[in-house]
Amino acid sequence: MFTKEIYTQRRNLLKKTVGSGILLFLGNDECGMNYADNAYDFRQDSTFLYYFGLPYSGLAAVVNIDEDDTVIFGDEISLDHIVWMGTQPTLKEKSESIGVQKTLPSEQLPGYLRAAAKKGQPVRFLPTYRAEHALKLQSWLALPPSEQKPSLELIKAVVNMRSYKSAEEIAEIEKACDITADMHIAATKALRVGMKEYEIAGLIAQTALAAGGKLSFPTIATINGQILHNHHYGNTVKENDMLLVDAGAETEMGYAGDMSSTIPAGKKFTPGQKEIYDIQVASHLAAVEALRPGVYFRDVYDLSAKVICEGMKSLGIMTGNSDDAVRLGAHAMFLPCGLGHMMGLDVHDMENLGEEWVGYDGEAKSTQFGRKSLRLARKLEPGFVLTIEPGVYFIPELIDRWKGERKFADFINYDKLEAYRSFGGIRNEEDYLITETGARRLGKKIPLTTEEVEALR
Amino acid sequence: MFTKEIYTQRRNLLKKTVGSGILLFLGNDECGMNYADNAYDFRQDSTFLYYFGLPYSGLAAVVNIDEDDTVIFGDEISLDHIVWMGTQPTLKEKSESIGVQKTLPSEQLPGYLRAAAKKGQPVRFLPTYRAEHALKLQSWLALPPSEQKPSLELIKAVVNMRSYKSAEEIAEIEKACDITADMHIAATKALRVGMKEYEIAGLIAQTALAAGGKLSFPTIATINGQILHNHHYGNTVKENDMLLVDAGAETEMGYAGDMSSTIPAGKKFTPGQKEIYDIQVASHLAAVEALRPGVYFRDVYDLSAKVICEGMKSLGIMTGNSDDAVRLGAHAMFLPCGLGHMMGLDVHDMENLGEEWVGYDGEAKSTQFGRKSLRLARKLEPGFVLTIEPGVYFIPELIDRWKGERKFADFINYDKLEAYRSFGGIRNEEDYLITETGARRLGKKIPLTTEEVEALR
Repeated sequence: MFTKEIYTQRRNLLKKTVGSGILLFLGNDECGMNYADNAYDFRQDSTFLYYFGLPYSGLAAVVNIDEDDTVIFGDEISLDHIVWMGTQPTLKEKSESIGVQKTLPSEQLPGYLRAAAKKGQPVRFLPTYRAEHALKLQSWLALPPSEQKPSLELIKAVVNMRSYKSAEEIAEIEKACDITADMHIAATKALRVGMKEYEIAGLIAQTALAAGGKLSFPTIATINGQILHNHHYGNTVKENDMLLVDAGAETEMGYAGDMSSTIPAGKKFTPGQKEIYDIQVASHLAAVEALRPGVYFRDVYDLSAKVICEGMKSLGIMTGNSDDAVRLGAHAMFLPCGLGHMMGLDVHDMENLGEEWVGYDGEAKSTQFGRKSLRLARKLEPGFVLTIEPGVYFIPELIDRWKGERKFADFINYDKLEAYRSFGGIRNEEDYLITETGARRLGKKIPLTTEEVEALR
Repeated sequence: MFTKEIYTQRRNLLKKTVGSGILLFLGNDECGMNYADNAYDFRQDSTFLYYFGLPYSGLAAVVNIDEDDTVIFGDEISLDHIVWMGTQPTLKEKSESIGVQKTLPSEQLPGYLRAAAKKGQPVRFLPTYRAEHALKLQSWLALPPSEQKPSLELIKAVVNMRSYKSAEEIAEIEKACDITADMHIAATKALRVGMKEYEIAGLIAQTALAAGGKLSFPTIATINGQILHNHHYGNTVKENDMLLVDAGAETEMGYAGDMSSTIPAGKKFTPGQKEIYDIQVASHLAAVEALRPGVYFRDVYDLSAKVICEGMKSLGIMTGNSDDAVRLGAHAMFLPCGLGHMMGLDVHDMENLGEEWVGYDGEAKSTQFGRKSLRLARKLEPGFVLTIEPGVYFIPELIDRWKGERKFADFINYDKLEAYRSFGGIRNEEDYLITETGARRLGKKIPLTTEEVEALR
């Protein structure tokens, strides 16, 4: 955890920003996989971590701005619990370690909120993403799930704080990125023809754990890189396959790293692989080069998409004006997703608070296929941490659908494209901090160019 | 998955047993760790797997016994979903693969249940263990969580089927046990002084993944073995420590293995470690020897507890009559938990259906400290699969509590015990199938005796 002063300062700034009312923060509970006591690895809610730092289940916190009262609600542990789970500091000790003096038993939370409601104090809370949150709000506030309206004021205030990473946060993120890089370097060195995808997934998990980290999200390790979020690991890696690995580490404090690599099964890329791989690298480097404060990330996306179109034109797969292709959305055949996202206490930082504020600062979002998957579009500012991850994908279902509709036939040469329908997909991904003057890569360097990858094979 | 005939036979037997009404089975949904789309590794509900085999989120099933109608409720996937997650069979194809011909969109489920209620058909469901289940039942049946009463008839019928493992289930469990054994053998070979606990936890995860399995529960790998369910991995293994490892694999179909090892940090156990370790082994072997149909597992527990008392007497830590000590509960100072549990599609099989029927066949449960943690007590029958895992633990908080109360002072020599307060804890665990005549160990053998462990160090 950070020092108690850091959490106190954060809460004070939040109180000042929101100005009035009751702020209610729900910590997470354990989630049973197949029965209550076989719980998934506990993950605290990230906003709770940001303001209260405590990585324990069963907690809630109230910041009563009107009465300058901050309370952690929770329960002390029993002897039975000590026998099974070990000793813990008391709730009082935990709370004092993050600068909160007042604690109350969980059962007093509904009464506290009812009393506030009687005084006409609004209870503000953030969007929920677990069923347990909805059940709690229903029970505490007598609001059915359909009437649980998160506070826009609170969302904007929290996004406005969590978007700008402080020095101590950047140090934590960089720690996650170093472990993440080691995971990718280990995978790049280890991959051999004949391996199962799950052997690489296992190596990645071990590398994270053996460095004292966890995975920040379920690892992707697939020879079918064209499936963007593939979590299947059952295939055998064959000659001329490439393995797309997307994996990241999370530090003990909850900060994430997130990188991707595309590794040839052979010692070197085949000429056909290199042809497409180099397009990803060109797009990637163009995006990185463009990162600086004041630039809209949607423009960086357009640039990286345009570089992909240019590459496709050089292979005869696309024709026409690349600016037009990107404006109209033809590039989404190969890049049907975004270019990157904020990263911090969440690997997609603050995703539960809504893209509208996190990624768009309230500006309108496109509904165009591909472009609508852009998680981040807003103007970049110093302190933002984000990923750069353009991809080049050949998705058979999408090819068939668009070809059938003759969609973007002015831009896409479907006859030529047919030869690539089994190519798969390529993605590389790095993490960057926006600085006062440009951007700085976070964590150790992982191989990006074909030369860099082949040097490790 | 098994053949469609197996799932059909299971459903037919269930229909015959329950006899009437609507049986409602809730599949599990994805559970977001820190936002909705960063989901934990999906785990289907085990009873849903038992009768419907489909390992996909977002499904529910209805078995309408009165009208001989079986329906899988779910939704087809969209092109957006294909781009992100790959193609899947259609809902119809999935359902036909497990012998169900009829599928309907999810949105029709509440109407189906309302129509049944109008006809006076009772809707029977099992106990819920995730907040999402409670929310669904609330929305589908207009029942607030406090009024959601699971069907005792359905619980008993399901427990009565899932308790007896078929040949094809035993083959799957044995596959899980083989991977589990490899995890423990790898840990036993790898442990060295100076390692962090998480290095072993990482090796275990990799061993499971690299064999195409997963973890059936969060691994325990701790030098503080006296904390029964310790999930902290931050300690460095020091000379004269022992590492208690409790870990298991789950196969792709969801069947679990579950074993424990206690590994000395040195090449050999110290004389002091061996003294206590041998007591665990004696207790363990006595329990295994006693396994056969017709024997009450609570009697096997008493036997293993008695062997621990005898061992403690040989060290002067206990005195008096061991039968009395066990009857009164003095052994719980060292064995404050049970001896084992059913194992199958859940590592604690059917734990969500309640111990009363799964472990006690409706008979009364003790409230005595230690004995009340016995998950399994009932008479053993051929086809049961269970774990054997007596432990010997020295829990400082429990020693202090009981010593302060002079509790069981006739049986426990607290002065002598004081020397062991930092000893830690020892557990070994194997998995057994009850056969017609006795019991058979499932999976490869892991080292148990000090000689067997030292041979791998």
